[in-house]
Amino acid sequence: MPRPKQPGEARKTVLDAAIAVIRAKGYADTTVDDICRAGGVTKGTFFHYFKSKEDMALAAADHWGAMVNAEFANAPYQRQTDPAERVLGYIDYRKSLLTGEPADFTCLLGTMVQEAFDTHPRIRAACERHIREPAAILALDIEAALKQRGIVTGWSPESLALHTQAVLQGAFILAKASQSPQVAIESVDHLRRYLAFVFDSPEQPGQAP
Amino acid sequence: MPRPKQPGEARKTVLDAAIAVIRAKGYADTTVDDICRAGGVTKGTFFHYFKSKEDMALAAADHWGAMVNAEFANAPYQRQTDPAERVLGYIDYRKSLLTGEPADFTCLLGTMVQEAFDTHPRIRAACERHIREPAAILALDIEAALKQRGIVTGWSPESLALHTQAVLQGAFILAKASQSPQVAIESVDHLRRYLAFVFDSPEQPGQAP
Repeated sequence: MPRPKQPGEARKTVLDAAIAVIRAKGYADTTVDDICRAGGVTKGTFFHYFKSKEDMALAAADHWGAMVNAEFANAPYQRQTDPAERVLGYIDYRKSLLTGEPADFTCLLGTMVQEAFDTHPRIRAACERHIREPAAILALDIEAALKQRGIVTGWSPESLALHTQAVLQGAFILAKASQSPQVAIESVDHLRRYLAFVFDSPEQPGQAP
Repeated sequence: MPRPKQPGEARKTVLDAAIAVIRAKGYADTTVDDICRAGGVTKGTFFHYFKSKEDMALAAADHWGAMVNAEFANAPYQRQTDPAERVLGYIDYRKSLLTGEPADFTCLLGTMVQEAFDTHPRIRAACERHIREPAAILALDIEAALKQRGIVTGWSPESLALHTQAVLQGAFILAKASQSPQVAIESVDHLRRYLAFVFDSPEQPGQAP
């Protein structure tokens, strides 16, 4: 006999399936049928948990955000005591994930917001929130690293943290275009060199007077 | 009497309309009807020029690539005689375009390849070609700048040129998520600082031994 499903287990099955399908073909092209097929669930199950495809997308963005936050919170680089090393460790960790097919390592949020930013305001807002969340955490380490090293900048730690997310999102697009993670890996290497320059340079170009 | 249309003029009208609609709502969500409505042309006109929506997307990618190449070839930064200044001038020029609504300054190619990379191989290939084309031109200036300054690196000029494209593509995603160009502008500022570090540093982290 198959194991009886736990409450909420089917919901998670739907969300995991949705994330896989949307990463592979985008939000607009994904149908509820696609998701049900990928998750091995009925449409009845889908609509038991979600009123619409858009409602499901909002839940998928939250599910993705929670997974990512948990993963980063427990990643090895968090054990570094030096804040600059934690920031560089985060970049190295993100680089280590760039393997396999683009649909396996690219971002649900960047994919959805790319198409839906104007047509689905609730999806845009959810993607913004979950893109900014890990950046805000990283910004604390960037701020600590700058302070510890006495580096004064004309830009905010938040802006550098968001820049790391921009590089990753753009690297995903180049990887999709190239059908390979290699171009993304090289872009993240450039980002890491920039961070090393920043942390090693008391004199920053464009710094506050 | 309305001026008689030149041969090919209606084709360009369709492509310009398609670019505007796809930038605003993505490729999959765009219908032939949307494009005809935006361009003020009939479906008969659309299908006179294009066999399908996908065929039109390939032509739109080529049209976009040709427009961008012509724009960059005639941009003011090309008059700089120092190759490093041309590279920085290119970044400043790209930054100057980050104004208005995200649909007005974001990239047709990044938008299409984000969703269609796996489902539409011909669109993916066209986007890759037109993303790599301006990067290859920029790589020549990066190479000249490094050579002129005697800077030896462990990475290729091509990889740095592609990194600039990754930053721009990712900055577009953050701008879409934030409904504002500001976050994109700040990301491009970080990219410019990286390039300044590179061109000002004979000792590069991670350089070839």
